[in-house]
Amino acid sequence: MPVTLDHWAEQVRAGDVRAISRAITAIENHDPAAEKILRSLFPSTGQAYLVGVTGAPGTGKSSLVDRLAAYHRKRKETVGIIAVDPTSPFTGGAILGDRIRMQSHATDAGIYIRSMATRGFLGGLARATGDVALLLDAAGKQVVLIETVGVGQDEIDIVRLADCTLVVLMPGMGDDVQNMKAGLMEIGDIFVLNKSDREGADRLEQQLGAMLALVPERNGWRPPVVRTVAIENKGTEELAQAISAFRKHFQASRENKAKKAALWKQRLVELLEVRLLDRVLGDPQGERSLEALAAEVAERKKDPYAAVSELLVRAGLAQDRKR
Amino acid sequence: MPVTLDHWAEQVRAGDVRAISRAITAIENHDPAAEKILRSLFPSTGQAYLVGVTGAPGTGKSSLVDRLAAYHRKRKETVGIIAVDPTSPFTGGAILGDRIRMQSHATDAGIYIRSMATRGFLGGLARATGDVALLLDAAGKQVVLIETVGVGQDEIDIVRLADCTLVVLMPGMGDDVQNMKAGLMEIGDIFVLNKSDREGADRLEQQLGAMLALVPERNGWRPPVVRTVAIENKGTEELAQAISAFRKHFQASRENKAKKAALWKQRLVELLEVRLLDRVLGDPQGERSLEALAAEVAERKKDPYAAVSELLVRAGLAQDRKR
Repeated sequence: MPVTLDHWAEQVRAGDVRAISRAITAIENHDPAAEKILRSLFPSTGQAYLVGVTGAPGTGKSSLVDRLAAYHRKRKETVGIIAVDPTSPFTGGAILGDRIRMQSHATDAGIYIRSMATRGFLGGLARATGDVALLLDAAGKQVVLIETVGVGQDEIDIVRLADCTLVVLMPGMGDDVQNMKAGLMEIGDIFVLNKSDREGADRLEQQLGAMLALVPERNGWRPPVVRTVAIENKGTEELAQAISAFRKHFQASRENKAKKAALWKQRLVELLEVRLLDRVLGDPQGERSLEALAAEVAERKKDPYAAVSELLVRAGLAQDRKR
Repeated sequence: MPVTLDHWAEQVRAGDVRAISRAITAIENHDPAAEKILRSLFPSTGQAYLVGVTGAPGTGKSSLVDRLAAYHRKRKETVGIIAVDPTSPFTGGAILGDRIRMQSHATDAGIYIRSMATRGFLGGLARATGDVALLLDAAGKQVVLIETVGVGQDEIDIVRLADCTLVVLMPGMGDDVQNMKAGLMEIGDIFVLNKSDREGADRLEQQLGAMLALVPERNGWRPPVVRTVAIENKGTEELAQAISAFRKHFQASRENKAKKAALWKQRLVELLEVRLLDRVLGDPQGERSLEALAAEVAERKKDPYAAVSELLVRAGLAQDRKR
């Protein structure tokens, strides 16, 4: 087994597509092998630059990501793409757009594309996405683009993984910048005004600029607005340059270090959650106890706090250290 | 203290607005008093009918909720409204629309309105919303309307709390029914076609009907489509009747019982998570260890799995029961 694991890890590091796909499947299925391979690969990570791309559905995020990927490939940089859909119960291959994209890059070994969707309650999607990003990092992808379908809290959690976050908007989506979700305004390192050949682009850019002027600079960085027309490949170079400028601005900065530590803090908490829950519910008997107790609570025969205490007693975790 | 708690619980049961607000604040702040009051009130819950209202921003959910609330008030039924915004870092009073709504109902003691937003990572928003719904239930509100801002995974988790879920759509939102999120189609017990006086309403209703015809019936229930124009109070009665029909259809059914048990299963898991995390990270030393380890992981001096094991050892939770 250790020989096989070493071999597998070696294949991932060499960028072998089948070895990478196998590892991602292990991550998605909460297979214990996932932890082993990630642990083995961890020292090889920390090299990739992670770019998160979020924005409302229909703003053209996929096209933008494709253009950015092509831009980097032209410069011989290897690229990973993770397309995340928290609202879909399906994974990977099931997403049509993803298949089409895979085909267009099928002959290019320097690019790896994977879709991810929601799976169970043990371990969130953000955690799995983070693990896949680590894996692509270990596999030598220099740029990893993480794209979400919409703009919910889950998606915000996901783009928080990134070193640089793009928020994509387009003119005439019915709601103007005033209605933009507060969270989105805060996470954007760069704002992309896509479909900028459409009516209303100037007004949107103006509104956005006015709003961004009110946001305090973060360590001397004021998020720029970059205009693109992704389907015509217009503005891709300007966008790539803005990302590069952001990267240089924060490289080796104290803020960057603090941001990464904060990210790992969050990820350790998630990992801890999975470990602890597994201790209480990880066997069939635990699951059965949970179901029986849930039924009693639903019928008001027991209160939920008493039910949780019973589960903890059963798992030998009853006594509190304090209080 | 027990006297005070009993008194407080008594006030909540009597529907005292200040006592309710104080309890909600305790829930939002993860104050230990929240657990005490909820535990004390739990036997008085299970009476309210919870209606979840979700749909894309701009579809007019708030107006619909207001109309439904007024409908029930006219029938002397007490109403609670919980407006949830997972993307906003602000709570309650900060939301402008909420203030305006509070004013219009300010003189009516039979209605209680509260906004909720994201808070920290300990205990999710769905859990807090569920606790507030329990509280309003104990406070004697006969109908509790839970309204979300958008349609992300968080919001889907929130409306899952409800006994009946309304999915709100409107004509001409750019995307047609084909693009509707898979999750939305599945959770809708009733589909509301709001702003149905606008162009495209007939086409949308037709599309929706065709799509719903493909979804298998759940225990003899096929989700109806109700047309409304909330700002003109058109269709409110039809909508209330559809909700009432749904309620009757599933009352005392086996499916309803199973659904409630499944909901409590999920809530017990969340409660368990909070308890267990608190055991490891609930003191200042735990928090400091976590931060130090996160910094080491960020610098690749330690892998995340080793870091989590260290945290478990520190909390006296090291040994696994199995494996």
